[in-house]
Amino acid sequence: MKNPFFDNVGPFKITEILKLINNNIKNLNLRGSVNDIKDLISADTNCITFFHSKKYKDLANSTKASFCLTTQSLKNDLPETCTPIIVENVLIATAKITEKFYPQSILDNFDFDVEFIEDTNFKKSVTYGKNVLIGKNVNIGTNCLIGHNSIIEKNVQIGDNCSIGSNSIIRNTLIRNNVCILDNCVIGKKGFGFFPKKTSNINYPHIGIVIIDDNSEIGCGATIDRGSMSNTIIGKNTYLDNQIHIAHNVKIGDNSIIAGQVGIAGSTIIGNNVKIGGKAGVSGHLKIGNNVEIAGGSGVIKNISDNSKVMGYPAKNIRDFLKDNR
Amino acid sequence: MKNPFFDNVGPFKITEILKLINNNIKNLNLRGSVNDIKDLISADTNCITFFHSKKYKDLANSTKASFCLTTQSLKNDLPETCTPIIVENVLIATAKITEKFYPQSILDNFDFDVEFIEDTNFKKSVTYGKNVLIGKNVNIGTNCLIGHNSIIEKNVQIGDNCSIGSNSIIRNTLIRNNVCILDNCVIGKKGFGFFPKKTSNINYPHIGIVIIDDNSEIGCGATIDRGSMSNTIIGKNTYLDNQIHIAHNVKIGDNSIIAGQVGIAGSTIIGNNVKIGGKAGVSGHLKIGNNVEIAGGSGVIKNISDNSKVMGYPAKNIRDFLKDNR
Amino acid sequence: MKNPFFDNVGPFKITEILKLINNNIKNLNLRGSVNDIKDLISADTNCITFFHSKKYKDLANSTKASFCLTTQSLKNDLPETCTPIIVENVLIATAKITEKFYPQSILDNFDFDVEFIEDTNFKKSVTYGKNVLIGKNVNIGTNCLIGHNSIIEKNVQIGDNCSIGSNSIIRNTLIRNNVCILDNCVIGKKGFGFFPKKTSNINYPHIGIVIIDDNSEIGCGATIDRGSMSNTIIGKNTYLDNQIHIAHNVKIGDNSIIAGQVGIAGSTIIGNNVKIGGKAGVSGHLKIGNNVEIAGGSGVIKNISDNSKVMGYPAKNIRDFLKDNR
Repeated sequence: MKNPFFDNVGPFKITEILKLINNNIKNLNLRGSVNDIKDLISADTNCITFFHSKKYKDLANSTKASFCLTTQSLKNDLPETCTPIIVENVLIATAKITEKFYPQSILDNFDFDVEFIEDTNFKKSVTYGKNVLIGKNVNIGTNCLIGHNSIIEKNVQIGDNCSIGSNSIIRNTLIRNNVCILDNCVIGKKGFGFFPKKTSNINYPHIGIVIIDDNSEIGCGATIDRGSMSNTIIGKNTYLDNQIHIAHNVKIGDNSIIAGQVGIAGSTIIGNNVKIGGKAGVSGHLKIGNNVEIAGGSGVIKNISDNSKVMGYPAKNIRDFLKDNR
Repeated sequence: MKNPFFDNVGPFKITEILKLINNNIKNLNLRGSVNDIKDLISADTNCITFFHSKKYKDLANSTKASFCLTTQSLKNDLPETCTPIIVENVLIATAKITEKFYPQSILDNFDFDVEFIEDTNFKKSVTYGKNVLIGKNVNIGTNCLIGHNSIIEKNVQIGDNCSIGSNSIIRNTLIRNNVCILDNCVIGKKGFGFFPKKTSNINYPHIGIVIIDDNSEIGCGATIDRGSMSNTIIGKNTYLDNQIHIAHNVKIGDNSIIAGQVGIAGSTIIGNNVKIGGKAGVSGHLKIGNNVEIAGGSGVIKNISDNSKVMGYPAKNIRDFLKDNR
Repeated sequence: MKNPFFDNVGPFKITEILKLINNNIKNLNLRGSVNDIKDLISADTNCITFFHSKKYKDLANSTKASFCLTTQSLKNDLPETCTPIIVENVLIATAKITEKFYPQSILDNFDFDVEFIEDTNFKKSVTYGKNVLIGKNVNIGTNCLIGHNSIIEKNVQIGDNCSIGSNSIIRNTLIRNNVCILDNCVIGKKGFGFFPKKTSNINYPHIGIVIIDDNSEIGCGATIDRGSMSNTIIGKNTYLDNQIHIAHNVKIGDNSIIAGQVGIAGSTIIGNNVKIGGKAGVSGHLKIGNNVEIAGGSGVIKNISDNSKVMGYPAKNIRDFLKDNR
């Protein structure tokens, strides 16, 4: 599937790609062109992929990619059809090549090409406030409202019966039906992902988007960042209160309730019917099961299994926490 | 008193109201019309009220309402003048009927009817920035400032000598004199109150408002939600720092100081001369006394009596906390 | 150096200054005029300074100021060239006199004198969105972007290759080169500093500014307050995630990384190469060393020495914290 938000400006010759990463390939005499950069599973022939941890050994073994960024110690797990390209840091090399294919994914400059909604086809189909700006290729369904000073940047898709508040900014986002987004939100900016470097960090490309599913509500002042290689997802009928921060690649299930000022760090996956109390924080790369309740103010630093109730920092079984703190 | 912010579109026939809640009334043959829905104390003859917990038995006993939403086990505490209407869930029935009387109280769509301030009578009496929007029936006193891109929605009342910053949105709010509201605030939106339901939650009507009393200051990026059946109140000469979230029905006393990123959950009542350090959180439905000090970062989960100093999560006496954590 | 952001409206006769502070000076027969109010080190002849704590005894001893606000018990540490002026509360007197010299430093009203960028000289040199407002005496370098609805208030200095997002407000700020400021930020407002008083607090003047150094990035929804007597500083190549609050006088070093929803209270100094996890808070007036790591959710209430890793509330050595919470 073509990424609707970030244009692939490839293909590139493999020689051109190798120049980017300064690898010291001696005996290789690589030829041919590369169409795209994808993960081990999604990559087709003529794609380049990346393999940086033994965890992904099985996936590596069956990749269809023609080229793979990897290390000396991992390269033997690749199939014969895939040429290993040995690099010092697989993720930095991946970032550089992703940026080459998707140069727009690394910047988060404002959308230059917006127009006032009065000057677009939405003049008749949308109920809108003053000073509303709409980017190119935006779609907005029937019976939608967009409040004053809000900005819907290029390619954003909005379903039917949605209400967007005032002073909100939406980019790189797919909004389904009956969704409410309240005031002062920023949805779809790049995540806080980069490689720290002295004098000037290297930003990580973010080619993922934000998806907000049917019947959900996003409170005032929310920041929901788009994904890097995958998407950030808010499930169906999930309600977020004010001042919530959802980092890149987070996925929240259906029918969940998240109270004010909660923060969810990058790549964490949260199940269905989860309740999170105000000001709680959840660390990155965790898995929170279905029907979990996290008490307000908690700090969650490890996975939580289905149907658990937790509290505290670090969060533990709520009964134990309350007993220990009597 | 007529609610100045939400129009009562009643009266309705009691038969019409009963249809909303699908109750299985068999022997009742109710007649007459209902003017309003109010709590047990405020309700007059020809009002409907609600009674859902034994805690309110004494109030129920003396209500003047003609009808009362309640349960089989509570109905005998009502006076003879009040006809009980038995429902499965008193609060859901109350929400549905409140929505019928006050349909605007459940939506938080942007105010369609604002005008640029240059096109209003405030052109001469207010000092204003660019792109300022003013709703219908707004009042603004003498010597007030309203910054760029701010939106003052319909019926908002602002006293004398007030300064509103830029990019702020104010709705359903009564602001007294000498109040400063800084930039990027959202004040008066509906609270985070709803009945969770699979596939689509039922929003709770919010017919309360926000009241900000004399000489107070609200920092940048604040969200202060309006009340559901009562009001959200910020007392006199109370200062709030940046990025603070005040949920629905919260009442904060006079001369209080609340530092950055604090969150106060719904219906909590905070006394006078209270100091709350940065990032502290206070759970909902609590009572925090006068002259209380809550240290930064604390999580308060129970009532705090007058003159206490607390710290920790859960917050306890500050000396005990510091001793335990040496 | 002349303060570029706040005009000194002095000099004033010393007799006029004394009237402000109602001190009961009996035998003094002071004459002459005062050019400015400065701290003990910066003050020149014909300046007034302030000395309120024994900690500053050595600085007091060598001040060049002609006058000094101080107390009976401290006055003997001043040199003969400096006339002590005894007051009840040195800091309140300092605030009142600072306000007299810098009346604009106490207000944070919006900038009345902005123009649409199309009507300024930046029309050709800056890439800008809709509804961008620019104050008087603003400087913007080459190759800069300013997003929709953003407001750059008077005297703000922006270097080369900077990108300012949409809906951001910048005042009293010096931004160096290659800086990104994302959407919905408020940078440079006065800090949360005042003297609590019944019925109406006395605001503290803020004549400091915000400095954001080369290659830094400020996430969405940030609030960074300007300093009171010193400046608030974000070092080189330091990245801040979304919804971060930086209070007045805070100084953050170079190459630091601060995750979402962190709050740093007033006057704290943070070193280079510091990493702070999401939702952590740091109390005011602390010193955090170089290469420190503070885990997400922590609450730091004392100084942290170089190269430490801490976690918890109150934050302690991370190994001890994890051991205690197994």
